[in-house]
Amino acid sequence: MFRYSHQLQFSAKPEKPDALYAMKVQELIGGQFGEMTVMMQYLFQGFNCRMPGKYKDMIMDIGTEEIGHVEMLTTMVARLLEGAPAEVTEKAVATNPVLAAVIGGQNPHHAIVAGGGAMPTNSQGVPWNAGYIVASGNLLTDFRSNVAAEAQSRLQTSRLYGMTDDPGVKAMLQFNLARDTFHQQQWLLGIQQLVDDGLADVLEDSRGSEEDQQQNHTFWSFSLDGSAAGEGRWASGTALVGDQPIEYLPEPAFLTDDDGLLPPPDPELFSTYDGDQGPGTPGDAAGARVQGAKNVATKIKDALT
Amino acid sequence: MFRYSHQLQFSAKPEKPDALYAMKVQELIGGQFGEMTVMMQYLFQGFNCRMPGKYKDMIMDIGTEEIGHVEMLTTMVARLLEGAPAEVTEKAVATNPVLAAVIGGQNPHHAIVAGGGAMPTNSQGVPWNAGYIVASGNLLTDFRSNVAAEAQSRLQTSRLYGMTDDPGVKAMLQFNLARDTFHQQQWLLGIQQLVDDGLADVLEDSRGSEEDQQQNHTFWSFSLDGSAAGEGRWASGTALVGDQPIEYLPEPAFLTDDDGLLPPPDPELFSTYDGDQGPGTPGDAAGARVQGAKNVATKIKDALT
Amino acid sequence: MFRYSHQLQFSAKPEKPDALYAMKVQELIGGQFGEMTVMMQYLFQGFNCRMPGKYKDMIMDIGTEEIGHVEMLTTMVARLLEGAPAEVTEKAVATNPVLAAVIGGQNPHHAIVAGGGAMPTNSQGVPWNAGYIVASGNLLTDFRSNVAAEAQSRLQTSRLYGMTDDPGVKAMLQFNLARDTFHQQQWLLGIQQLVDDGLADVLEDSRGSEEDQQQNHTFWSFSLDGSAAGEGRWASGTALVGDQPIEYLPEPAFLTDDDGLLPPPDPELFSTYDGDQGPGTPGDAAGARVQGAKNVATKIKDALT
Amino acid sequence: MFRYSHQLQFSAKPEKPDALYAMKVQELIGGQFGEMTVMMQYLFQGFNCRMPGKYKDMIMDIGTEEIGHVEMLTTMVARLLEGAPAEVTEKAVATNPVLAAVIGGQNPHHAIVAGGGAMPTNSQGVPWNAGYIVASGNLLTDFRSNVAAEAQSRLQTSRLYGMTDDPGVKAMLQFNLARDTFHQQQWLLGIQQLVDDGLADVLEDSRGSEEDQQQNHTFWSFSLDGSAAGEGRWASGTALVGDQPIEYLPEPAFLTDDDGLLPPPDPELFSTYDGDQGPGTPGDAAGARVQGAKNVATKIKDALT
Amino acid sequence: MFRYSHQLQFSAKPEKPDALYAMKVQELIGGQFGEMTVMMQYLFQGFNCRMPGKYKDMIMDIGTEEIGHVEMLTTMVARLLEGAPAEVTEKAVATNPVLAAVIGGQNPHHAIVAGGGAMPTNSQGVPWNAGYIVASGNLLTDFRSNVAAEAQSRLQTSRLYGMTDDPGVKAMLQFNLARDTFHQQQWLLGIQQLVDDGLADVLEDSRGSEEDQQQNHTFWSFSLDGSAAGEGRWASGTALVGDQPIEYLPEPAFLTDDDGLLPPPDPELFSTYDGDQGPGTPGDAAGARVQGAKNVATKIKDALT
Amino acid sequence: MFRYSHQLQFSAKPEKPDALYAMKVQELIGGQFGEMTVMMQYLFQGFNCRMPGKYKDMIMDIGTEEIGHVEMLTTMVARLLEGAPAEVTEKAVATNPVLAAVIGGQNPHHAIVAGGGAMPTNSQGVPWNAGYIVASGNLLTDFRSNVAAEAQSRLQTSRLYGMTDDPGVKAMLQFNLARDTFHQQQWLLGIQQLVDDGLADVLEDSRGSEEDQQQNHTFWSFSLDGSAAGEGRWASGTALVGDQPIEYLPEPAFLTDDDGLLPPPDPELFSTYDGDQGPGTPGDAAGARVQGAKNVATKIKDALT
Repeated sequence: MFRYSHQLQFSAKPEKPDALYAMKVQELIGGQFGEMTVMMQYLFQGFNCRMPGKYKDMIMDIGTEEIGHVEMLTTMVARLLEGAPAEVTEKAVATNPVLAAVIGGQNPHHAIVAGGGAMPTNSQGVPWNAGYIVASGNLLTDFRSNVAAEAQSRLQTSRLYGMTDDPGVKAMLQFNLARDTFHQQQWLLGIQQLVDDGLADVLEDSRGSEEDQQQNHTFWSFSLDGSAAGEGRWASGTALVGDQPIEYLPEPAFLTDDDGLLPPPDPELFSTYDGDQGPGTPGDAAGARVQGAKNVATKIKDALT
Repeated sequence: MFRYSHQLQFSAKPEKPDALYAMKVQELIGGQFGEMTVMMQYLFQGFNCRMPGKYKDMIMDIGTEEIGHVEMLTTMVARLLEGAPAEVTEKAVATNPVLAAVIGGQNPHHAIVAGGGAMPTNSQGVPWNAGYIVASGNLLTDFRSNVAAEAQSRLQTSRLYGMTDDPGVKAMLQFNLARDTFHQQQWLLGIQQLVDDGLADVLEDSRGSEEDQQQNHTFWSFSLDGSAAGEGRWASGTALVGDQPIEYLPEPAFLTDDDGLLPPPDPELFSTYDGDQGPGTPGDAAGARVQGAKNVATKIKDALT
Repeated sequence: MFRYSHQLQFSAKPEKPDALYAMKVQELIGGQFGEMTVMMQYLFQGFNCRMPGKYKDMIMDIGTEEIGHVEMLTTMVARLLEGAPAEVTEKAVATNPVLAAVIGGQNPHHAIVAGGGAMPTNSQGVPWNAGYIVASGNLLTDFRSNVAAEAQSRLQTSRLYGMTDDPGVKAMLQFNLARDTFHQQQWLLGIQQLVDDGLADVLEDSRGSEEDQQQNHTFWSFSLDGSAAGEGRWASGTALVGDQPIEYLPEPAFLTDDDGLLPPPDPELFSTYDGDQGPGTPGDAAGARVQGAKNVATKIKDALT
Repeated sequence: MFRYSHQLQFSAKPEKPDALYAMKVQELIGGQFGEMTVMMQYLFQGFNCRMPGKYKDMIMDIGTEEIGHVEMLTTMVARLLEGAPAEVTEKAVATNPVLAAVIGGQNPHHAIVAGGGAMPTNSQGVPWNAGYIVASGNLLTDFRSNVAAEAQSRLQTSRLYGMTDDPGVKAMLQFNLARDTFHQQQWLLGIQQLVDDGLADVLEDSRGSEEDQQQNHTFWSFSLDGSAAGEGRWASGTALVGDQPIEYLPEPAFLTDDDGLLPPPDPELFSTYDGDQGPGTPGDAAGARVQGAKNVATKIKDALT
Repeated sequence: MFRYSHQLQFSAKPEKPDALYAMKVQELIGGQFGEMTVMMQYLFQGFNCRMPGKYKDMIMDIGTEEIGHVEMLTTMVARLLEGAPAEVTEKAVATNPVLAAVIGGQNPHHAIVAGGGAMPTNSQGVPWNAGYIVASGNLLTDFRSNVAAEAQSRLQTSRLYGMTDDPGVKAMLQFNLARDTFHQQQWLLGIQQLVDDGLADVLEDSRGSEEDQQQNHTFWSFSLDGSAAGEGRWASGTALVGDQPIEYLPEPAFLTDDDGLLPPPDPELFSTYDGDQGPGTPGDAAGARVQGAKNVATKIKDALT
Repeated sequence: MFRYSHQLQFSAKPEKPDALYAMKVQELIGGQFGEMTVMMQYLFQGFNCRMPGKYKDMIMDIGTEEIGHVEMLTTMVARLLEGAPAEVTEKAVATNPVLAAVIGGQNPHHAIVAGGGAMPTNSQGVPWNAGYIVASGNLLTDFRSNVAAEAQSRLQTSRLYGMTDDPGVKAMLQFNLARDTFHQQQWLLGIQQLVDDGLADVLEDSRGSEEDQQQNHTFWSFSLDGSAAGEGRWASGTALVGDQPIEYLPEPAFLTDDDGLLPPPDPELFSTYDGDQGPGTPGDAAGARVQGAKNVATKIKDALT
């Protein structure tokens, strides 16, 4: 269960309004790596976590902090939009070219849809969607996604930092940069903790004994005119999995003579076919070899007797 | 520029058709972490890479391999769909309950839309979209996203591996598991190489000197009834950035008295407001303080003279 | 079945072209509450309506009117785009700053994709989608959604009205404002009619006797530092359902000691788990307790004898 | 800023797992009117609210409660998935038809993507997206959307209630039904409070004096073979706006002779045109009548002198 | 403006309900090539058409017919859903395996969201979106898209036809097949009419004289191990454009030595770069070579004097 | 399997950067008919093709070429973005109106998300999605979609061609125009080849004998005030299917007296209903007439004996 305080975690006060910058800040709210993403990603990871204790609590702590970050950024956007020239019409534009530029660049939704507030969308107006988030139930895997999300988020914040002069905005972004830095560490240290607790080995090696033991340490090059990829650490030295040396394959070698030839099509689906491979398998009971009625009846009969 | 061979990289031959499993395999084609994602992600990273040589070549090599993986998986799906009971009608269902189950579970698009072939969608029928992919121009950040993508992909493959008995399917998934394992290593070693080449430090520290020097090593807990999060490595020991010890903050301390109060709204946007904070700023030229006409005129005049 | 007339319901003639305004008008066509939304929402409600007569006819009447509103707005957009500076190149821009502003702000799809016509998208270029619409089969519930849709639509039209000087555009928007006003009334009066016809009580109370009889008149506050929410009508006075007084709960009281602890995971799904709660339930026939084969066999046996 | 407690607001304990029902419960999490929608809708309305005090606090109180509802429902789904037959293969299916049915109907993402946890998607696997939510800055309008959202949500919960026998699930749904009932009241009473506080009139009448004074109380019928729509309250009696009687228009009367004829197209956009209306307006500086260079130069000159 | 009749164009009466088939029929309503697509595609083409007369009228006639097709199909779905086993719970399933199969396969939205009616989604539950439709303003191009849409739609209808025994459903699909056949002809004949009216040549050749005169009649093969593509009509004989013979290029020949090397990045965007190509161009006024302030000032000065 | 070369197929070198044009070029990359669409469309058609030989090879050849076109366009965009004024702040804008215009119009993602590279989105920032592509298994039908896709793509390229002065950009677009022209021919000639090979007739006539033999050559007009549609070739002359003359139906004639009346609703779904048609069919085992337990038991009994 959740509760809220009226105060923000950190102040979100621009010195002056700036409708163009408000449009850009939307990326940090509803973009692929905006605060809505990390908030929902961590909450779902926390809700689905199977282990009470330090892992679940840590995830919930950060997820809860991120709700407050959405709050800070939406507050910033609403303040940046104060007096945004929404109602300026042709007449005003004609006498003020710079004003026209702001009008051209500002987010029309800020005025028309949100009435001067933030939108749950990215800087291009695309609504946030849950296809961005990750919560697999496997913490090692998810912590890697979290490291990546914080890294992308921090990079975007760094870029946005250079696009404003406003000291109030810069102050908040300095806070955001620091939290992104810390949260990156947190997930990296979380991975270390999983290793220390013996919770990583098993998972990292899911189906490890069944995977192809050659292809897990072979670099394939697909270049036709020479590749420098063989010069990197990824193409030589000991593999991270097992203790075989990484093999570099400069020319791809087919591991099969399978040329992808498909079976004749079900005639009732009207796929194009010249008949060269004989008649197709009809998609009816007869064709569904695996689940033939006779077979089932026998099994049920067995169960009944 | 690209070229293709008729042969597959690895064979994609199921022993028997299985329409239900074909539905599930779609996750590996058009899911959030399916092969379409890694293919497009690596190609865009490669196309946008600023450095000719080993990094760009390595990215292009893997991206090109992934095109072939989409090919292998779509081939597998088409073969698993042979004779899928698409045309079975009520009459057939009534006499064969197991057949009915397959009909209930199979992907209707496999028959109606694709005519017995694979779809560019996930296992729930949601079309793949480019909002899944990442290509930021910063290799360190993107390699982290790539590690995460390969990890999620490998985890999903591990899960799918347990959902089939078919030796032909299992053989291909063993190959896929191994490639996911190797590609994870590749991106991890890519990060190591960036560090060795001195290309990571600068980037990792983008705006490093400007970020809040306290908040980059402080863990905030937001629990109201005690949190075990303080027991993890992320809450004690030396921070990864700088050499300060991580500080654990058991109760959040507001860094501001900003309570998010917004300015009075633009009256022409008809947002609800009781007038207590005085009149709102109209969204016209007058209100757009930053870009007032007078100001501009002066600047242009300066430039002209 | 539907038919059409060549004439528009109301004239859609701007005095002058205005490519920037055309971009904004798109919100009224393909936005969340644009005419495409109400058109498809009412048509689906009408098609799915279970009662021939005044309700179905009223819904169909308005739905059919809305098709014509899409027509009016697309016509307006195409006329506003006359001579839009699509082919203006750098050279022209350099000598005319205001022209540049229009070029910056105009919708690139209007020229590149639609060839000077309207698009089925919102003002940010996001395609309209059917996830916006509502047709539940329950008229009381849907009429509430319709009131809301007309209110949002009217609000957006009011905002757009202030963003143009063009008398031709304003004339059409005056018509649109009036229709939104009337359609709001229509759905409000529709709700009244449902009440008068005895069709609301039953539905409003679906599962009424089974709902928690305390929680349907209790206001929970979740604030940590005092909330003024107790001052509103929603927190005191008689509840609208039943005749109990609304209760105001200043501090949340847990109704359970359930702390969300999840069961041990299926080991084949490789979710992170330390084993503290014992082994997980495997996701196979044995684990699927509810549907054990034995159980089924017995039931079928019973049915057969 | 937000905080959390480990306990749930209400218990989420099914008596037995049920993978099919888990698939359906997803509608209440990530559907158009699921808890993610109301949670994000109320939080954005609260963040963007211009008035400190009872309105903002009330919105924040409910928004915060809804975060906990997402938590309850995701917990319920994870528990319903215990032992879900994810790894069951052909062989098992062939001997147990009912098991096969569950396999056909269950959500493949629950196993493959989420590892036995809930997904941020609806019951069909479509990811939640922010295009569902509404936060316009106008409280009257938004409270109407909130009433509608709670009504749709309650209706869907009522339907789901009839689809299970499980007493633990039913207990939680009884709580949910009650909260939906109360939240409906809350928004209805919120509207009453806005009226009492004099904050509704102005807003409801935005641009009221400018709207077409005939079309705001006229019902148009568009039926070709008789409509019963005239029998409803919406077609007679006094209008809700103004005190005119509603007028019923049995046959649509064109208010214009505008037949939607578009101007000749910009020749450089290659739209089909036979030239009958003369040459089209080129989309270059010359054609952009409104923003001609000469005009601008004059205005700037004026501003400079 | 539009009007409606109560009667359907063709009867939509299934002999018996069939909830599984209802799920499939959704493809014809809200799928990529469902009736919502052709309805909105033709209406937008008609609204944006620049020529009054036979073309616009023909497009509007078919678009209007398609609204009625959406009506027929939604009616069919609602009737197929009569008595759909939505409320069947575990207990019932356990005694009736076939019932379980229907429950597994039916669309959960039909009950939970639509209350027994059709949804504006495809057979997988993905909402229809306007990204499917095409209306470019160029009739020749759009008629080609229309031919393709009708062909795909007819193919899907053909496939669905084989998936039912119900004579009432089959009768309606026979009508739909015929209309798809006729509409295909209509657009093919529309293309012929455009040719006859001299409206095709110009458009087909847009920028014809500027296109590369070699590459418009050359087939490139990209196969590494031999391609049979040279055996087709597309690789020999006279080209359709101009009267050159088509040239077959068995091995791709680079037309450039451009290896895609990108310029050094803007340092403030923190893209990975080793400095080998010199310093990057900063993204500020100085770097924006094309639009330098000095340059502009001169131009304005010129315009002013 | 695929391989790549470092060189581009054709050079992608703009003479000068132009951030505004880069935004527009995105349409050719990630738009509905951008290169991502044709690339993925042809690859899926090729992967799913049932016939080895000239058809499959031709499709694969073109699909492989298109991967290289995505590469060319992304390279062009990255070069057009050199020095794009991303970090320009208010101060710079105030002194340079033209710069402001570029800032207003440029794609914020180019700097914030991609760090100066191309995005997998259209010119409005909407991510590419697989709902754009078509691969039905029927080559005749798909080749029609391919003709349409190339035509729309060529039209958009023609429009973009007129929006730049840059000779380097124009050179590449001349190449693109030519390839679009050739690929259009290729698919048209592919259709001719299918006809020559006897692979079109069968498919075109799928279910031909079952379709309504009147409605496949009848033009329906739905205009209320006269339609000129009867003047086109589509309304007279011999039909393309069969040798009947096309019939023109100036007034729609209902082919049924079905007025779409729906059956009474399932009472547990709470759809609005006044009871006039008797009680609704409950959605339980009893109501699911088609699949009654008794019926099934009999069938299974028959199979067992």
